[in-house]
Amino acid sequence: MIYLKLFGLTLLFSLVSTFSTPIPANYTVFWYQQKVDHFNYINNDTFQQRVIISTDHWCTDGCPIFFYAGNEGDVFSFANNTGFMWENAPRFKAMVIFAEHRYYGESLPYGDKSFASLDKLGFLSVEQALADFAELIQEIKVSYPAARKSPVVMFGGSYGGMLAAWFRIKYPHLIVGALAASAPILQFPGLYDCNGYNSIVTKSFRSYSEQCYLSIKNSWDAIQRVGSNGVGLRWISDNFNLCKPLSNSSDLNDFSSWLQDTFGSLAMIDYPNPADFLEPLPAYPIGVLCSKLPDSTKQDKPLLVDLFHAISVYYNYSGQRSCFDYRDNSEGGRLGGDGWGFQSCTEMVLPICSTLNDSMFPQATWDLSQVKADCIKTYGVAPEESKALWLFGGENIASATNIIFSNGARDPWSAGGVLKTYAETLPAIIIEGACHHEDLRSTGPNDPIPLIRARQREIIIMKDWIDKYYQSINHWPAEWSRDSNLI
Amino acid sequence: MIYLKLFGLTLLFSLVSTFSTPIPANYTVFWYQQKVDHFNYINNDTFQQRVIISTDHWCTDGCPIFFYAGNEGDVFSFANNTGFMWENAPRFKAMVIFAEHRYYGESLPYGDKSFASLDKLGFLSVEQALADFAELIQEIKVSYPAARKSPVVMFGGSYGGMLAAWFRIKYPHLIVGALAASAPILQFPGLYDCNGYNSIVTKSFRSYSEQCYLSIKNSWDAIQRVGSNGVGLRWISDNFNLCKPLSNSSDLNDFSSWLQDTFGSLAMIDYPNPADFLEPLPAYPIGVLCSKLPDSTKQDKPLLVDLFHAISVYYNYSGQRSCFDYRDNSEGGRLGGDGWGFQSCTEMVLPICSTLNDSMFPQATWDLSQVKADCIKTYGVAPEESKALWLFGGENIASATNIIFSNGARDPWSAGGVLKTYAETLPAIIIEGACHHEDLRSTGPNDPIPLIRARQREIIIMKDWIDKYYQSINHWPAEWSRDSNLI
Repeated sequence: MIYLKLFGLTLLFSLVSTFSTPIPANYTVFWYQQKVDHFNYINNDTFQQRVIISTDHWCTDGCPIFFYAGNEGDVFSFANNTGFMWENAPRFKAMVIFAEHRYYGESLPYGDKSFASLDKLGFLSVEQALADFAELIQEIKVSYPAARKSPVVMFGGSYGGMLAAWFRIKYPHLIVGALAASAPILQFPGLYDCNGYNSIVTKSFRSYSEQCYLSIKNSWDAIQRVGSNGVGLRWISDNFNLCKPLSNSSDLNDFSSWLQDTFGSLAMIDYPNPADFLEPLPAYPIGVLCSKLPDSTKQDKPLLVDLFHAISVYYNYSGQRSCFDYRDNSEGGRLGGDGWGFQSCTEMVLPICSTLNDSMFPQATWDLSQVKADCIKTYGVAPEESKALWLFGGENIASATNIIFSNGARDPWSAGGVLKTYAETLPAIIIEGACHHEDLRSTGPNDPIPLIRARQREIIIMKDWIDKYYQSINHWPAEWSRDSNLI
Repeated sequence: MIYLKLFGLTLLFSLVSTFSTPIPANYTVFWYQQKVDHFNYINNDTFQQRVIISTDHWCTDGCPIFFYAGNEGDVFSFANNTGFMWENAPRFKAMVIFAEHRYYGESLPYGDKSFASLDKLGFLSVEQALADFAELIQEIKVSYPAARKSPVVMFGGSYGGMLAAWFRIKYPHLIVGALAASAPILQFPGLYDCNGYNSIVTKSFRSYSEQCYLSIKNSWDAIQRVGSNGVGLRWISDNFNLCKPLSNSSDLNDFSSWLQDTFGSLAMIDYPNPADFLEPLPAYPIGVLCSKLPDSTKQDKPLLVDLFHAISVYYNYSGQRSCFDYRDNSEGGRLGGDGWGFQSCTEMVLPICSTLNDSMFPQATWDLSQVKADCIKTYGVAPEESKALWLFGGENIASATNIIFSNGARDPWSAGGVLKTYAETLPAIIIEGACHHEDLRSTGPNDPIPLIRARQREIIIMKDWIDKYYQSINHWPAEWSRDSNLI
């Protein structure tokens, strides 16, 4: 996920590559007819939920199902970027399913009217999305008779990880366990220090170089000073190769926010392998970026020129971009911003601020009353900042079972993640050196040992869930290995 | 609960005494503002939920809260008939709360318009009711700062027991456990033999006397034969002292159904102590009733005369009733039939039939397609007979914890109850000789040993939940006894 301040709100997006990693299996897409409202009996509308399904490696006869809890984007984004499921499907002889989240991708309950008015958009809620998954799992077990006894393991990353964890809490009878990767289920008001996210971003950059950290920290004032008049705005527009020139201080603030978002994104995806995200990136892109910021004592304009070269690592590593658009979030254009903006104005109220002196970001408080005012203005709804806590329990999860909470230690979202083991069957796996749901990605040549070990541990735990389940129903698929040779 | 066939549907009502047992404590009634819709963001209406609260015995400082999950009736009905909570509040130094279920009693979301149309009534669902309880528990912990650390034990009987069990499954972070008394959570299509209910009713009557059983079994044909013409209808009307005479075969069928309901009710409440229900009753009323049916070989009219005397035990034990009204369910008039009829047409699809040869009831199948047709005609909704299963898991509850499933072995609803222990912390307590949620009632002089022992066991288990909770938060109220002397 990356965060961006839009309408004064903090919005989150899973950062995924849409087309970079083709699905390494045969699959089909089917459309499941869902009720728009699972909880009342007034609106009988239905919609088509998009689902990717692959049975290439499934050994039928009650063999496992890997089910990805789609989050705020096109389901193919997640299918293309969750190599861990595809790579382990043969090992587990598992059916693989990716379910698209309502109001994202092509699963729009009211088509292109879905975001037009509250009476259409108002059915976008976590509870409804979880119920969609619940219905779908039931349906799969009916559609595939050989799946009737299949244990389902749910996967999810980022907001999808939150959904996976919450699904296991709410529907424990439908899945045997959940791998909730980089799921900031504790990032809610009252539970969480809103500085957490930016502290980790800061630490990540600072770990590469003190000069890099100081350069970025100094740049915010430099931007304001240089951009304090029309000539300066023009200078920035030219030197940052902006598609649309800055014309006033409001633009300048948007430009500054855009840069901040960029750094946050980079901290999430500072992966050890080159990755072709929305932009192609080298391994450890922050290291490359920081090499462009060698001297924090430079004067304003030279510092900003360095900054331009630095962010070009992110936005133009391939050298093919003709100009930069500070008005777009780095990937907002490809993901369902409309939906997430609404969710962040209802249940998903995840505070982010920057009030610490050593933050590399400008000082910014998190002001719930301002968030509320903006939400009411934009969507006509007021955020219920404590709803997710009473719905899902916050950190009172000890009575749940079989959820792996994995977090990359360098992922900014880990600040709101479950970093301690609340109960025996709720292991918290902290992956040193890793970033945002890095364990869900395909293996790569540079994967560090802690990441490799984390994935191994996840595999062992998931096998244990499945073995115990087969034991409980006293059914073992013929092709299922009961010993540990599977691992 | 008793069942009655109305609109061709099977309806359930908790059988409770509304005014017989005054609340043995000081209490206040407060009204909590609930959202009509907890799961979408379209309807912002709110309503006032009625709540009874008593702090007479509460020792503050995080001492326990006993919370009754109100079911399909006036909340005072449950407060007046759940003596187990009141009697144990001093022992547990507990706050006592009874929450009224939406659309029952005075907790009507749209006042007297609540049942007028589907756009008002459609917010009646189990999920909404559970969310009401969840919000309310949160609110109590805010309103009473000394309750912030209080463990909540939820109680419920009959449908309320189903709610208590499901609440623990769905909101395990808000309560430490649930006593689900006579909760037929398995009485759903596919899980349950629809003969179960009537088999137990039959067995109960037969245990008193074979002649009683045969008399009732023979009476249905006798009613049809005698009532096959106008003279006969008149004879039945006179001899059963009916307020409104029978005028055709449809009336005759209603009369027959009313008698069947009466026997079902009696099997639920064949308690060992005299009880002042909607009608005052002697101890073991079926025994008294059966004493009026000594000879099953009598001819039709003499048999029916005996039957009149038999049911007069139920309807006129006090001798003050001037006539009998077969058009009313025995307590339907005082409970919220409108609400339950709707619930039985949406999620609460609990089949009851009578297809066994030795049933004392007329042969009757359970026909889902007929139920659906009737529901669509009456309410404009089609029952979703498998919804409760995917929502709550059916018998796949082994991953839940801390739910006591108690059932009286003579309670007809025990046929759909949880009679085996699915997991260590989900004890099934079967109370030999006991009837419908008898353990929740006040103690009485004739309580049999199995009932006394069951209550003792429930107390020990609840104390264990609470002790473990205090251990987990490392807070022990000053007045809380950590040793077993409490018991």
